[in-house]
Amino acid sequence: MTRIDLNCDMGESFGAYTIGADEEIMPLVSSANIACGFHGGDPLVMRRAVRLARKHGVAVGAHPGYRDLAGFGRRSIACSPDEIYGDVLYQIGALAAFCKTEGVALRHVKPHGALYNTAAVDPAVARAIAAAVADFDRGLFLFAPPGSALEEAGAAAGLRVVREAFADRRYAADGTLLPRSRPGSVLRDPGEAAAQACQVACAGTVTAATGEEVPVAARTICVHGDHDGAVERLRRIRESLAAAGVEVAAPHLD
Amino acid sequence: MTRIDLNCDMGESFGAYTIGADEEIMPLVSSANIACGFHGGDPLVMRRAVRLARKHGVAVGAHPGYRDLAGFGRRSIACSPDEIYGDVLYQIGALAAFCKTEGVALRHVKPHGALYNTAAVDPAVARAIAAAVADFDRGLFLFAPPGSALEEAGAAAGLRVVREAFADRRYAADGTLLPRSRPGSVLRDPGEAAAQACQVACAGTVTAATGEEVPVAARTICVHGDHDGAVERLRRIRESLAAAGVEVAAPHLD
Amino acid sequence: MTRIDLNCDMGESFGAYTIGADEEIMPLVSSANIACGFHGGDPLVMRRAVRLARKHGVAVGAHPGYRDLAGFGRRSIACSPDEIYGDVLYQIGALAAFCKTEGVALRHVKPHGALYNTAAVDPAVARAIAAAVADFDRGLFLFAPPGSALEEAGAAAGLRVVREAFADRRYAADGTLLPRSRPGSVLRDPGEAAAQACQVACAGTVTAATGEEVPVAARTICVHGDHDGAVERLRRIRESLAAAGVEVAAPHLD
Amino acid sequence: MTRIDLNCDMGESFGAYTIGADEEIMPLVSSANIACGFHGGDPLVMRRAVRLARKHGVAVGAHPGYRDLAGFGRRSIACSPDEIYGDVLYQIGALAAFCKTEGVALRHVKPHGALYNTAAVDPAVARAIAAAVADFDRGLFLFAPPGSALEEAGAAAGLRVVREAFADRRYAADGTLLPRSRPGSVLRDPGEAAAQACQVACAGTVTAATGEEVPVAARTICVHGDHDGAVERLRRIRESLAAAGVEVAAPHLD
Repeated sequence: MTRIDLNCDMGESFGAYTIGADEEIMPLVSSANIACGFHGGDPLVMRRAVRLARKHGVAVGAHPGYRDLAGFGRRSIACSPDEIYGDVLYQIGALAAFCKTEGVALRHVKPHGALYNTAAVDPAVARAIAAAVADFDRGLFLFAPPGSALEEAGAAAGLRVVREAFADRRYAADGTLLPRSRPGSVLRDPGEAAAQACQVACAGTVTAATGEEVPVAARTICVHGDHDGAVERLRRIRESLAAAGVEVAAPHLD
Repeated sequence: MTRIDLNCDMGESFGAYTIGADEEIMPLVSSANIACGFHGGDPLVMRRAVRLARKHGVAVGAHPGYRDLAGFGRRSIACSPDEIYGDVLYQIGALAAFCKTEGVALRHVKPHGALYNTAAVDPAVARAIAAAVADFDRGLFLFAPPGSALEEAGAAAGLRVVREAFADRRYAADGTLLPRSRPGSVLRDPGEAAAQACQVACAGTVTAATGEEVPVAARTICVHGDHDGAVERLRRIRESLAAAGVEVAAPHLD
Repeated sequence: MTRIDLNCDMGESFGAYTIGADEEIMPLVSSANIACGFHGGDPLVMRRAVRLARKHGVAVGAHPGYRDLAGFGRRSIACSPDEIYGDVLYQIGALAAFCKTEGVALRHVKPHGALYNTAAVDPAVARAIAAAVADFDRGLFLFAPPGSALEEAGAAAGLRVVREAFADRRYAADGTLLPRSRPGSVLRDPGEAAAQACQVACAGTVTAATGEEVPVAARTICVHGDHDGAVERLRRIRESLAAAGVEVAAPHLD
Repeated sequence: MTRIDLNCDMGESFGAYTIGADEEIMPLVSSANIACGFHGGDPLVMRRAVRLARKHGVAVGAHPGYRDLAGFGRRSIACSPDEIYGDVLYQIGALAAFCKTEGVALRHVKPHGALYNTAAVDPAVARAIAAAVADFDRGLFLFAPPGSALEEAGAAAGLRVVREAFADRRYAADGTLLPRSRPGSVLRDPGEAAAQACQVACAGTVTAATGEEVPVAARTICVHGDHDGAVERLRRIRESLAAAGVEVAAPHLD
């Protein structure tokens, strides 16, 4: 049976500030990337997210970002590889504490926002992240874009890399995401997102903005929880995947 | 043989800012309380402190504080017990990650500054700290003032509490520390500090500012690393303890 | 003609995080208390709030809080009076820069959350705040609870103090607010809030939870923008005040 | 008479953390660039620095940096021009408040660290900084590297730009600074630094690492206060400038 993981960023609220609809989204995904306090999230938000994941049987991952709450981790910072290593390890450890006390396994790591984008193309940053993950626990999955520097660094560090595609973003013909500045870069229509998710899961391809069918070998599909209409989009994706006979499940050892 | 632990706060530098003389002090103590990033410390500082402790065979403890870098954790914040629990657990987890990757055991927890002082007298804060420590690892030692709310909460949570005295602070006749605002509250003279340390270790007492001999049942003695002359003071304390036949060693299971 | 000021906290969003409905609330008030970056607010949020106030002819005030984004300024911090002075002056200056560049006068200062509550009862904190305001500009209005330490300190510093009442909070018979922990402490019903606002404006009294008519001499009335239903409540208050022939206007020199 | 300005970064301490020797350096310079709380500095540190400058008749400037205390403002952050504008204006306003209350004129603005370096080459960042300065007060001097994007943006915004050279950094033949990673990039020898300062002031040139005499048209010379030996270096620079008949004075209107 065909199987795919659905992941979403979670636990990004902070103090009195709320972002995302964790309660509604958690039941619809199989992996939760939980913010660790640097770009979003705080200790009690993290605990709540871990508990919510446990309740719905969702795999918990760490979602470390740049130390930039003001920029929500969306601005690249010219950190040294050592600083990246330290910041990522610190955040993983903090989340792991809540996993431990709540009786939940930490399963994966997915860098957030600008850190994810930088790690996709900068080998030094990618290696620093992969080293932090591997030094902490070589059994963790590392989520990474197919063909990226992060995928390569993860594999070199002995980690199991889970290639990621996006259900709600349009791709270019070269297999990269269309920049958000381009019109049509975000798939807001639930039907379109669901169709793209199914195409990734079943055919291992997406249809680019220019019409070409492009191979995207992904074992996990991300849906952005902070886009408007995320819940409805996720529901349609689940329905379409079910109709296509695709099982939604977190990555696991084969 | 009489045995006592010597502990000191470490790893409190932050980014370009340096506090403390970790390199010189680490060889002189048996337990290091390592800051975890909230009142001081950053990921690379924490890693450096853990490595330094490992090199000198010093027991590593977490030193969580209020989320208040601007106040260096010395200002009490009216947090809810839940917030205290989350902040303490988060910090322990972050430090534990560096212990894990550096192959060092996390041995104890000692709250920092205003959090230590508040926990000494506020049962709700004390219970929140004890719960975070116990939920993370019931095998950790909890450092606490003798007779404090923190000692009681630690014991109730099933933790092994290590009572703490101070070598470089003058005591009042009721066994509490003389407030820092009072003249003579800090023992700057190495000889006086060494004498007090020996008295605690050998007789289980201190001589109060008013001359009374006061019982202070302590298994660990703190020396403040950020006081001027800390290194010289520590050297004299080590010499005096050695001369008195007292072994300096971290707490361990009997 | 009877005249009253309606004030509301504004500009408390931060980066990707949104709090409050500034766009809808601004047209309904006469004074905006704009957060200055310590408990909420960031530079671009501050600029947006100042522009919005200008557009609607609303008087701009600084709304400084404790340096505690994680606690949204709702947790008292044991700062020294000097620290309070510095933090308040820093925040006023930051907001004043945006007032200057946007061509808007800075008119008043109202401390936020725990700083407001502490200043109401702690003369040293109150004096530090009043000194910061008066040193910056003796022409600024200081918003304070009637009969509070802050009112007294403001008057002693030569500031014009504007006494404040609350439309959406229930009072006790002694003229203080019913604690939020008590049932019925928040007036959610638009009609009740509007009635209380009119009673303050026209009779200078409120009806306490226990039924007594209590004098509350206030020239400004606060409505909480972060309570559910704030916009509807404000609309009803405006309607009722208009029907009662009360003019809504920011404090000004008589 | 030949005249030159000597400037140094000041007020970069934070809370319990100390950086720099402000007390010793202030009497030796004519312009102080005072940190504004984002990369270093806090309100009380700012007030202390402003008072110290006033005492020694030193011109006060704002020294805004990236919002990055952990990186001390030395890491470039991919901020939008709007974010740069807001962050710079906020910081200028905060410092201006302390200038106002201490009766000192704010005279110039010099971006800090990575913000200075980015503004030298990135026109959008340079324009955002220049706009913030000009919108706040068109009478402020803007310190900038000769021939930089920042100089151009400052001039276009109607600001008086003060070109800056460095006494303690070695130049390349193209007039740029030798990267810090290169050996010999920092002039630690007081005599060498003094000679370079005199050459800039008297001849408008520096001698590059490769021996060429390179034109450096500067009206202000920076000495790094956080380099070891800064005080001794500054003393030698003052002596040499005096011996060469060069007056040390802050920029002023001609």
